[in-house]
Amino acid sequence: MNKIEEYVLKHGQVLKGNILKVDSFVNHQIDADFMYESAVTFKEHFKDKKITKVVTIESSGIAPATMLGYLLHVPVVFLKKEASALLNKDEAYECNVHSYTKNKDYSVRCSKKYISEDDHILFIDDFLANGEACFGALNIISQANAKLTGVGILIEKSFQKGRKRLENENIDVCSIVRVASLENNQITFVKQD
Amino acid sequence: MNKIEEYVLKHGQVLKGNILKVDSFVNHQIDADFMYESAVTFKEHFKDKKITKVVTIESSGIAPATMLGYLLHVPVVFLKKEASALLNKDEAYECNVHSYTKNKDYSVRCSKKYISEDDHILFIDDFLANGEACFGALNIISQANAKLTGVGILIEKSFQKGRKRLENENIDVCSIVRVASLENNQITFVKQD
Repeated sequence: MNKIEEYVLKHGQVLKGNILKVDSFVNHQIDADFMYESAVTFKEHFKDKKITKVVTIESSGIAPATMLGYLLHVPVVFLKKEASALLNKDEAYECNVHSYTKNKDYSVRCSKKYISEDDHILFIDDFLANGEACFGALNIISQANAKLTGVGILIEKSFQKGRKRLENENIDVCSIVRVASLENNQITFVKQD
Repeated sequence: MNKIEEYVLKHGQVLKGNILKVDSFVNHQIDADFMYESAVTFKEHFKDKKITKVVTIESSGIAPATMLGYLLHVPVVFLKKEASALLNKDEAYECNVHSYTKNKDYSVRCSKKYISEDDHILFIDDFLANGEACFGALNIISQANAKLTGVGILIEKSFQKGRKRLENENIDVCSIVRVASLENNQITFVKQD
């Protein structure tokens, strides 16, 4: 087990329904040093690839995406979940996303100004489970005819189908931790070299 | 005019109703270098004061708050606008906030686990206008009996009453830019030494 897995084991909390609660360092309280270290790992993993923009979804993707944008000195764009009077429907790309955790649909949107066909995009998010949010973002990136460089994830639930779906599309995925199972309230990790 | 004011002049857009649209570098697309430089300024301004935690409100406060958390090596907490099944009402501090921009009320909430009476808190946000969001956050900080170290703001609309309200409470405010007026679609700044 590496240091970051030990950290997740110590600070993560397993709830009913295969939920891993990480609100002490990711999605309510944020450990900015953890975000920085994760961004360093993403930068290293994708160092030979072209990246013109980092894209994420509000709110929990913003911290790691901003750190990575700072390290790469490229703009960060966060897809918005809430409609805004300042973002007209015909000036935005939009996509519906199903949340299994919340058991509801929501839409994500992005101004057409901030993703273009010239962009090479690294998509960053806090979780990868079934891949619904991720494929929603990829749909928007595709609507803009931008190129996808890869996907960076803080916590991957490897026992759900998201990673497999991305690999089937030949997408390069870098996950900071890969959770193999949450059964019996125990976090176990995918063995990595 | 300093460099950062020139930057805001170049990238900000004035809309009807005294709205300064900064979605190209703050609240949709994020300029991570701008966030880093702002965090350096906040750190310098409050360098003689005790800070155990940075608090902000989702979503647009997260980027500058995370950068500051990284520079200070203290945790960042973002107050949530959306109710969550993972955050029970009796385990959270909550406060209503009126948004003049959106002309509606919303509530912000924070798990009681992440702000305590031992905390010395620097509150960070993207905008200070009438101070509604800020006083909502201060209300939550006060419910937790935590101490407020000060307030750091990216863009202050100095022609609205937020700053005055904070100064009346003897709160130390550090704003990266202070906008004196948006009249006639022109951004002018408060003259500073």
